Amino acid sequence: MINLRNDYCGVCHPKILEALCSKSKNTYVGYGLDNESIEAENKIKMLINNPNASVYFTVGGTSTNKIVIAHALKSYGAVIACDSGHINVHETGAIEATGHKVITVPNVNGKLIAKDVEELIKGHPDFHMVKPGIVYISNATEYGTVYTKSELISLSNVCKKYKLYFYIDGARLGCALTSKVCDYTIEEMASLCDAFYIGGTKNGLILGEALVVTNETLNEDIRYAIKCHGGMYAKGFVNGIMFNELFSNNLFFEIAKNENKLAEKLYNELSKLGVKFLFKQETNQIFPIFDNSLISELEKEISFEVWSSNEDSTTIRFVTSFLTTDEDVNKVIHLIKNIKQN
Amino acid sequence: MINLRNDYCGVCHPKILEALCSKSKNTYVGYGLDNESIEAENKIKMLINNPNASVYFTVGGTSTNKIVIAHALKSYGAVIACDSGHINVHETGAIEATGHKVITVPNVNGKLIAKDVEELIKGHPDFHMVKPGIVYISNATEYGTVYTKSELISLSNVCKKYKLYFYIDGARLGCALTSKVCDYTIEEMASLCDAFYIGGTKNGLILGEALVVTNETLNEDIRYAIKCHGGMYAKGFVNGIMFNELFSNNLFFEIAKNENKLAEKLYNELSKLGVKFLFKQETNQIFPIFDNSLISELEKEISFEVWSSNEDSTTIRFVTSFLTTDEDVNKVIHLIKNIKQN
Amino acid sequence: MINLRNDYCGVCHPKILEALCSKSKNTYVGYGLDNESIEAENKIKMLINNPNASVYFTVGGTSTNKIVIAHALKSYGAVIACDSGHINVHETGAIEATGHKVITVPNVNGKLIAKDVEELIKGHPDFHMVKPGIVYISNATEYGTVYTKSELISLSNVCKKYKLYFYIDGARLGCALTSKVCDYTIEEMASLCDAFYIGGTKNGLILGEALVVTNETLNEDIRYAIKCHGGMYAKGFVNGIMFNELFSNNLFFEIAKNENKLAEKLYNELSKLGVKFLFKQETNQIFPIFDNSLISELEKEISFEVWSSNEDSTTIRFVTSFLTTDEDVNKVIHLIKNIKQN
Amino acid sequence: MINLRNDYCGVCHPKILEALCSKSKNTYVGYGLDNESIEAENKIKMLINNPNASVYFTVGGTSTNKIVIAHALKSYGAVIACDSGHINVHETGAIEATGHKVITVPNVNGKLIAKDVEELIKGHPDFHMVKPGIVYISNATEYGTVYTKSELISLSNVCKKYKLYFYIDGARLGCALTSKVCDYTIEEMASLCDAFYIGGTKNGLILGEALVVTNETLNEDIRYAIKCHGGMYAKGFVNGIMFNELFSNNLFFEIAKNENKLAEKLYNELSKLGVKFLFKQETNQIFPIFDNSLISELEKEISFEVWSSNEDSTTIRFVTSFLTTDEDVNKVIHLIKNIKQN
Repeated sequence: MINLRNDYCGVCHPKILEALCSKSKNTYVGYGLDNESIEAENKIKMLINNPNASVYFTVGGTSTNKIVIAHALKSYGAVIACDSGHINVHETGAIEATGHKVITVPNVNGKLIAKDVEELIKGHPDFHMVKPGIVYISNATEYGTVYTKSELISLSNVCKKYKLYFYIDGARLGCALTSKVCDYTIEEMASLCDAFYIGGTKNGLILGEALVVTNETLNEDIRYAIKCHGGMYAKGFVNGIMFNELFSNNLFFEIAKNENKLAEKLYNELSKLGVKFLFKQETNQIFPIFDNSLISELEKEISFEVWSSNEDSTTIRFVTSFLTTDEDVNKVIHLIKNIKQN
Repeated sequence: MINLRNDYCGVCHPKILEALCSKSKNTYVGYGLDNESIEAENKIKMLINNPNASVYFTVGGTSTNKIVIAHALKSYGAVIACDSGHINVHETGAIEATGHKVITVPNVNGKLIAKDVEELIKGHPDFHMVKPGIVYISNATEYGTVYTKSELISLSNVCKKYKLYFYIDGARLGCALTSKVCDYTIEEMASLCDAFYIGGTKNGLILGEALVVTNETLNEDIRYAIKCHGGMYAKGFVNGIMFNELFSNNLFFEIAKNENKLAEKLYNELSKLGVKFLFKQETNQIFPIFDNSLISELEKEISFEVWSSNEDSTTIRFVTSFLTTDEDVNKVIHLIKNIKQN
Repeated sequence: MINLRNDYCGVCHPKILEALCSKSKNTYVGYGLDNESIEAENKIKMLINNPNASVYFTVGGTSTNKIVIAHALKSYGAVIACDSGHINVHETGAIEATGHKVITVPNVNGKLIAKDVEELIKGHPDFHMVKPGIVYISNATEYGTVYTKSELISLSNVCKKYKLYFYIDGARLGCALTSKVCDYTIEEMASLCDAFYIGGTKNGLILGEALVVTNETLNEDIRYAIKCHGGMYAKGFVNGIMFNELFSNNLFFEIAKNENKLAEKLYNELSKLGVKFLFKQETNQIFPIFDNSLISELEKEISFEVWSSNEDSTTIRFVTSFLTTDEDVNKVIHLIKNIKQN
Repeated sequence: MINLRNDYCGVCHPKILEALCSKSKNTYVGYGLDNESIEAENKIKMLINNPNASVYFTVGGTSTNKIVIAHALKSYGAVIACDSGHINVHETGAIEATGHKVITVPNVNGKLIAKDVEELIKGHPDFHMVKPGIVYISNATEYGTVYTKSELISLSNVCKKYKLYFYIDGARLGCALTSKVCDYTIEEMASLCDAFYIGGTKNGLILGEALVVTNETLNEDIRYAIKCHGGMYAKGFVNGIMFNELFSNNLFFEIAKNENKLAEKLYNELSKLGVKFLFKQETNQIFPIFDNSLISELEKEISFEVWSSNEDSTTIRFVTSFLTTDEDVNKVIHLIKNIKQN
């Protein structure tokens, strides 16, 4: 069985495990105040070329989103997202559980568009409605697409114009930054927003996200929010060790680049076989559409998620991970070729 | 430097790391629905001899407490704890952040006493006050003490009488169950409460707690609460692998028993040297009291936490962990002997 | 200046004021446990022919919505509404502030349609998304429309099928029930839902809503929720006196019927003058559309709210209240006739 | 039956009812933006001699406390109160329902003492605990006592020193300010805190509190918080009319002064009869202690609340209201004289 179900399907990248093994006799202070965490933080600050940024290592994406959004908003504040945003759909009301409304506009290829944000803000003029206080996007998006530099600049400008924070959920940031369509560096992206997180869980770590806060007002007392919202990791140094390794020898980008490359190969070869897709491939998630009759055949050999279906066809999701090999991809192409020819 | 600061000071127990390494090429489904998690769940259900229990592997203690308490209570419901309870002191308002009041009575040696619970309930007779809905205790307590069977039975009976849930925070449950003063098995304890968690973070794992729910009403839909309150771990199988190993070959109890034994030795030998303690030693935490003048000497060789201090003396906390060795303990004894003699 | 801005523009109906004056020397117990409240409750229970119902007099609509929805839901539960629902738009995130997501579908003439509810529920299959637990509608709707019996039955059936509560915001229930298009009694409506409130604030009272709960499970301990969510009125007997009067001599229905009649006259006469409307008139709110150039003329003589506007035309809202007279309506018709002729 | 149960036992003071009657034909804009509200706001600003203050008319005490505290705090912020504070005891967890912990110290005669606040703050040094952000007191207190100027200055100074807001719950502020022991004006008190509310519900109004905010940072966007937390009153002008009248011809102070005078007479005369009290009389609440055997006799003629009891004696509460007469007081004295003599 070939696993294309998701990118959090294996323990962790061998290099990460090696780092943990090599440091498993050491003792550290807790709660992310250890030297490994400090070293990892410094690497990330170098990477984004911002010595004034702060970095916190948290335990998961939903939890990190809760922390940032709850920390950014007054009690009547709202977060703006597109309707397909992870916080709006797949976090079981985690944001609302902190007391805040998620207000949405329709996505365009999984993305939030600046002019829609501006209209939404204008439609919230007084105290009878929530007050928008932060804009949330995922990059890469839930549909595997990547924001362009110009789109990020537009969003950043709208946020500045209306004094909203701009926050980027980077659960799959590695794949976004190493995408062939990405026209900016992490440094450039970091300079356009107030906070973002670098996903570790979906990029080869056992768990963990690196929350980067560049806005000093937003940064104030944020450790309280991390603890209060259940995202404080007693063994923070484990995250420190892992992120320290992830940002050594370019590992973070290597893992993501390889995933993208394999997804691209899958996309190109399946396209040649006549397979249609819901979106163009930009990162490690692709959404091929098959006749309903073929799905059960695919399920015999490949593990994947069903995205949506109608009477005739079913859209599924293939995700490449740090465990996916070129051989896996070849097998999948071969399998689908055979299925389609029968 | 000898580390007696806490029991979450190292990556994880060698056996756990070995298990992770040996399974690091596998792929798994996410969110705790994998076979490793199921196997670990079954081991725990066997251990407590309750096939109807449910087990969920979560990411941390504060987060687990949020989940259970928020899930147990209606919006105006309150949790009863003693004043030294972790949820009341050291969780940065995490319970209140879910909308619920923590109502407290003074602790007796770190414990909540049944008759105080009953009086507190009687003092909340109508809708002008919160409605108590769940009782929270930590076992072992924050002071290293262990509930007796008779104390647990009394608490359980009060809860049944007034229809409250009874929940045990087992961050250091291993040390409680292997304490020389413990007069019950985990099966007996499990039968007295509605839910408890078995702490992994403080018992040799990289992270993770096993939330065990024996009350079926409380169990309903609890996975929603886990996700909503930020405690859902995408790579749940990592917890599965670790707990699976922890409950093989008695490892869980071995780790704890050894910690207790080392703490007891420290306690006994230091007592012989005339050192006084805040509480009797029952588990892996001891609280020796030193003249203020000796503290800086101790700090040169030992890493520990200061618990409290007055003009003359300072109470500190020594915690043994899975990394503590007999040699460490001997060194500490020797060091203190020397310091006291000078 | 003629006031057609809203139906909460005057102190209260003369009969209500008279009742308050006549009882202003009496003393009562607080918090709605007085005889006036009990008498008013009994009248409402007779009216809906349900001796097992419970009635609570609360201080406002938003507050009442918070109470019912927060009381109905577990922490991860969500309320379903149509996008134009008051809780989704004009309550400044009051529902989310209790921790719950409002999930929406597009309205059809201001209404929530049963089949959309069913689809929405089906689209929320597991613990990665919120769990729908209650359905919210406003009757009359925010657009002045009224649910038909058949629509209510369909919604009620979907709720029963999926075990959701069904709750009706009756801020303008009087106008709904006395609408020419209404094909059911309050008794029939009450039998189809689990809770609803009878609006007093918009139906001639100084303030106050009567929350009617017919579902016994939902009813349990709801006074705690009323207090916790800030809706407990110390001088509950004032509400008791007012609702007692409102449900004497048919006053509740008389006020509403007269408002509807005046709105209908306005609608019919303006239609004859060629005025178009956003919706058909069914209750006391109508939404005439005027050329932008006419708006400033209207504003000189009439107080009203602007609903929406585009380059050419502006939709405004006229609302009749217990203070509106036939003379007012004639003046408005005359005025618009003149304006349109110039 | 003589009513000494509470000070919210009657509809409203005759002058207030007169004002409402005289204006009952008028129409007003909603939500407190009307002229009556503006006029009342100006009177209060004149009274405290602070043209930069803002005044909002809200619907009740619990609701007002929720608004101010939730508005003042970040998600992990806590409010400091004494253990007998209304928010800690009798609001059914309303503050915690907004996500915030109430941290307490023991009261001294119903009061919060500045040095206890300072110690509490020092005991909350880092992100493992909540961060105190606002200090709450009631004046008059729940025990009928009144803060002295020096006590208020001390609290104000601690708040400034540690950058906490200082908020005063004035449910019975009228009685505090007209107490024989009060050594400051409302202007002086206002200058020492960041916000306070002037209670109307317990001072002769149908309902309503006037929230006065003098701190500009705290004031920002507070109308959103009022709506979000269910305290926005559609017919705000009713509050406007009532407060306008209350602050005409000294009515606010007259009502309170008379209540205090009657309570003082009761206290002095009962003391002469040998009755003991839980606290010295300072405002309109007194707490006489009777042998248990006398309580049933008292209950035949007087309506009151039982405060606490032990094997021998019962403490009850007498509260004078705007409806209490000198004749009522004489009757009570006479009655108790008789009872004690038998």
